[in-house]
Amino acid sequence: MKMEAIHEEQPPFEMGVVVPKRIVEEGIDCVEVLVDEFQKAGLIVGRVAGLNDEFLKLAAPVEVLGKAAAELKLKKRTQIGVDLQFEWDEADAFVKQSDGSLFSWCERFRCYNHMICGIVNKSGSAIVLKSDCKDVSWEPREPLLWKLEKEGIVKEVFPIHDEIKRKQLLKCWALNWWDLTNQPLDEIYAYYGAKIAIYFAFLGMYTNWLFFPAAFGLLAQLVDFGSLQLLVLPLFFICIISWAVFFLQFWKRKNSTLLARWQICYSVGAESAYKYMDTEWSSFHSCAGSIKMVGADKSKEKEKFQREEWFGHMLRFRNDAIIILSIICLQLPFELAYAHLYESIESDIMKFGLTAVYLFAIQYFTQIGGKVSVKLIKVEKNENSEYRANSLIYKVFGLYFMQSYIGLLYHAILHRNFMTLRQVIIQRLIISEVLENLMENSLPYMKYSYRKYRAVRNKRKREKGLAARKSYFNSRVEKEYFKPVYSASVGEELEDGLFDEFLELALQFGTIMMFACAFPPAFAFAALNNVTEIRADALKILAMYRRPVPRVAATIGAWLNIFQFLIVVSICTNCILLVCLYDREGNWNISPGLAAILIMEHVLLLIKFVFSRIVPEEPDWVKANRMKNATQAQNMCSKQLLRNISGRRGTLVTGTPQAD
Amino acid sequence: MKMEAIHEEQPPFEMGVVVPKRIVEEGIDCVEVLVDEFQKAGLIVGRVAGLNDEFLKLAAPVEVLGKAAAELKLKKRTQIGVDLQFEWDEADAFVKQSDGSLFSWCERFRCYNHMICGIVNKSGSAIVLKSDCKDVSWEPREPLLWKLEKEGIVKEVFPIHDEIKRKQLLKCWALNWWDLTNQPLDEIYAYYGAKIAIYFAFLGMYTNWLFFPAAFGLLAQLVDFGSLQLLVLPLFFICIISWAVFFLQFWKRKNSTLLARWQICYSVGAESAYKYMDTEWSSFHSCAGSIKMVGADKSKEKEKFQREEWFGHMLRFRNDAIIILSIICLQLPFELAYAHLYESIESDIMKFGLTAVYLFAIQYFTQIGGKVSVKLIKVEKNENSEYRANSLIYKVFGLYFMQSYIGLLYHAILHRNFMTLRQVIIQRLIISEVLENLMENSLPYMKYSYRKYRAVRNKRKREKGLAARKSYFNSRVEKEYFKPVYSASVGEELEDGLFDEFLELALQFGTIMMFACAFPPAFAFAALNNVTEIRADALKILAMYRRPVPRVAATIGAWLNIFQFLIVVSICTNCILLVCLYDREGNWNISPGLAAILIMEHVLLLIKFVFSRIVPEEPDWVKANRMKNATQAQNMCSKQLLRNISGRRGTLVTGTPQAD
Repeated sequence: MKMEAIHEEQPPFEMGVVVPKRIVEEGIDCVEVLVDEFQKAGLIVGRVAGLNDEFLKLAAPVEVLGKAAAELKLKKRTQIGVDLQFEWDEADAFVKQSDGSLFSWCERFRCYNHMICGIVNKSGSAIVLKSDCKDVSWEPREPLLWKLEKEGIVKEVFPIHDEIKRKQLLKCWALNWWDLTNQPLDEIYAYYGAKIAIYFAFLGMYTNWLFFPAAFGLLAQLVDFGSLQLLVLPLFFICIISWAVFFLQFWKRKNSTLLARWQICYSVGAESAYKYMDTEWSSFHSCAGSIKMVGADKSKEKEKFQREEWFGHMLRFRNDAIIILSIICLQLPFELAYAHLYESIESDIMKFGLTAVYLFAIQYFTQIGGKVSVKLIKVEKNENSEYRANSLIYKVFGLYFMQSYIGLLYHAILHRNFMTLRQVIIQRLIISEVLENLMENSLPYMKYSYRKYRAVRNKRKREKGLAARKSYFNSRVEKEYFKPVYSASVGEELEDGLFDEFLELALQFGTIMMFACAFPPAFAFAALNNVTEIRADALKILAMYRRPVPRVAATIGAWLNIFQFLIVVSICTNCILLVCLYDREGNWNISPGLAAILIMEHVLLLIKFVFSRIVPEEPDWVKANRMKNATQAQNMCSKQLLRNISGRRGTLVTGTPQAD
Repeated sequence: MKMEAIHEEQPPFEMGVVVPKRIVEEGIDCVEVLVDEFQKAGLIVGRVAGLNDEFLKLAAPVEVLGKAAAELKLKKRTQIGVDLQFEWDEADAFVKQSDGSLFSWCERFRCYNHMICGIVNKSGSAIVLKSDCKDVSWEPREPLLWKLEKEGIVKEVFPIHDEIKRKQLLKCWALNWWDLTNQPLDEIYAYYGAKIAIYFAFLGMYTNWLFFPAAFGLLAQLVDFGSLQLLVLPLFFICIISWAVFFLQFWKRKNSTLLARWQICYSVGAESAYKYMDTEWSSFHSCAGSIKMVGADKSKEKEKFQREEWFGHMLRFRNDAIIILSIICLQLPFELAYAHLYESIESDIMKFGLTAVYLFAIQYFTQIGGKVSVKLIKVEKNENSEYRANSLIYKVFGLYFMQSYIGLLYHAILHRNFMTLRQVIIQRLIISEVLENLMENSLPYMKYSYRKYRAVRNKRKREKGLAARKSYFNSRVEKEYFKPVYSASVGEELEDGLFDEFLELALQFGTIMMFACAFPPAFAFAALNNVTEIRADALKILAMYRRPVPRVAATIGAWLNIFQFLIVVSICTNCILLVCLYDREGNWNISPGLAAILIMEHVLLLIKFVFSRIVPEEPDWVKANRMKNATQAQNMCSKQLLRNISGRRGTLVTGTPQAD
């Protein structure tokens, strides 16, 4: 209780560690040792007793964070705009966040992790720690947390919400319906880190831009243009394609603007790879070492790099081939069979049953597909986790793409059944998305309730004899512990919950774009849906899930390519739809020869697109060379530069500009 | 003569200054002053009397170049692989060229220019210099060379050949027929700079790769595959498209490999823009100043940048629209009229006459088009000269594209006249390219001969009374002075002679790719032609022209995009050709509705391509910010870093690796 009282003057608690409730015995209790070590490291520890567990809440004053950042050799933006290694003595040289704090949430999280995992047994001999019933031997130089996690004493370490900021965000963002697509992006960035903020920026901009084609689509549907009616659909088609192309280009601009505002250095391409390797410090270090080692024999090193590069490509190519072939050979026939049965069955009850079976089957298939993809990706030697995540995104999206659109195309092209097509589109857009939003928000709540219920039951079982009813929930941190982790439905270890959000957006974009000519008002439905989607997603990460672990990604990554791919596909599908719409009598017959050549043309255009992505533009060894150079330079002049900057800034503040 | 004798120990003469022969009077002769000033600057001056002019040959010891480089604040690759400002005291820290010299030819050229243009009147009052008949008043702080050029006393300043290296290159490159496509690229780079070396590397690789489709093309033409004959052409089509895509991707890899070998830092995108601004130091300096000035008011600065950026885009868009409209409205009808007349005229003599008139007319048109393009580009506010050059390339290529291919397409599609088509292709590939190579080499020789003849005649006229016959050519530098400058046929100030070479290559690539299915053996002709082209081009720049001014460009720039565009176009044209070839009976009829939709599809795919290039991904102000930061950092830590590097290198040489 004392701890809670002085909470206001202290930095907020941002990390939680869960340990089971123990019967305190004589000897050195392991949790006490952990708390001691945390406090020795400079962390402020708050202890909260829960139902069955005890929670250690951790907070760190800025000096402690700074020390950890310097140990981590964290690169940070300085006043002159260059990223340099952090030094606590020269803290003035570094740019502050927009909320006045020195470190961003992502940096703080890395520092916390470094401090928590950095606790090792510094004495020469093993220390015996006591737990409930067993003894734990803490070997010299062994990380304490790792040991306790292995022994099952530390159940989990997770970031916890900052209640004040969370409430603020709830009020001005999730529950603020007046600003249609305006969101407090800076605050979101400060609270959740770049990746989540970028997602909401994208969603907001997309929704904003959707209003134009929505209005045009409604116009095209509702107004009768008389003799010009024939031209309306082609015109609409041309407009939305241009709209989509411009939208994505302007998004890229907005993305780089946001990164400039948040002082994140992220130039596309090689530098980004460097940035990520930096994150995984150990792997980078070993890599730099290997470069140094063979530095003498340059040509051999080059050869090694080339061999590894091509081997990696072969592996990735093989995996992609497996996925593509299995989608075409297994999923395509299945989807076509369903669409065909749906078309041929007369009775509504049978249709309903078929759909139920189908929905059950695809749930199962998608899970298998996701698992296979994750396994394949783990075999690949990808350079960094973001690259791995992108690889997964492409593979899983392929699955969903087939699942979502093949049936629609079947109705449209083979049966020219536009009524069914429109029905399915409306169904997807309204019912399924409303349901999805409900599900997305209720499922985590149900999980939370279930865990809470189980915990209460456990407690009751144990404390049967004691006073029966007490306020079970005296701590916020326990509530958060019961909430589910914000994770992807496929491959939890590779992606976070944003995967599902982006997937939903991409599938929506695909549906409205690919069948734009068949059903123009779809854009209006999508716009309406997205306005609620912003709130629903905000509510979800604010209230329904634990605070997500911040990630370094600073662009929407693979999804941008997927959106661009969908534009190209929608050009082709809309053309086919127009042919079907205008050629009801079937007198625009295409002979097999012509069809073959048209198909060949499109396949070749696809090959042109895909192949030029297969071969990377820059050999790996050139990239490795550059990375080595960049690090060397930065490490070398870091200190000197810092002195210069903090010195110079002093003169700037006093008003005298430096002499030329 | 004495000068020539000690030539071997000295650095080679690399720059020539042409002044007229004067009658030396009393007073301060301006040329003597110029020579004095050159020698004061540390340059070694060789004076050679020619027929009507006197030649000052300049050479610079490495110390003098180093001093100039330091004054220029030249960025140079250091031993640790980072580009830093050059300092003469720390010269050991910088990487040497592969031939052992400290500066590359491009850097030397900049230093020479800096020294030659840097001679100003340092005294407080004007100095009166005497020339043949008039007095020149050299004002204080006025550059001497600029003054003398204005007065017509300094006729020209140009880089001169290094006879030893030139002879070496002639032997191992231009006259070496055994290494088919192997070229001594490192020597070419050392002698001509990056841009020319990159051109020859591209030409060599292109020719090398051409052998595969050449063999396949001959096979497809000569062998009868019996019942599979129908499949040969589509298969060939698919193969060459894949071939072309892979070729361009591997070229990009090779390009970056070459740049890594030559220690040129050139990451695509923003950094390159920075690199170029660096080249034009003055413009960069003013830009940096303006950034600093308004640095206080960030949002206003941002707005200014945005306004300027979009204004520039509008201007460029307008210019492009003008060019495209005039090509479509003026050139297209003309080309079609010629093709139609050629098709409809029966008599061969009339055809011959028509072609003569046509050839005369297009020469004229292209010149006009080129001039208009250059004028339009000058209005545009392009950031740097390389960007301007690219803009010109796109515009002029548009012209040539129409000129070269519309006639061919007319024969192929409207008349299905494959005989004429093949005739024209063979004609183009063999006759015109052989003729072109002859012309390219003989025209400069004729120009050279004419200028020599005129000079000799002038001399004879003047010296009628004196001894009649003397060895008129005692100096190599005078011969070079008579040779024409290596410049583009359009817009001399924007591009050098490589423009014509690349244009030739691109048109050849277009012809063989776009009509691949109509005439597969074209690849073999092209391959043969290119083997000779390598030698012809080498001979041209080694013997027929003056030594070209080195340029900074490190990639093939706009031409890469043009090659990629040609691949996409060739997918479409080959499809049309296949339809024409297989549908002789005309029973694959396309109804107007279907045709309209197919056309719309292709137009939209084009729009997708083009539009995504219109909007730049990164706003100008973000780019400007980054540039500012990069420069600041580099300037700041430059000296400190250098000391570290040269210190460290010392220990490396003595064998002790630095401590960790």
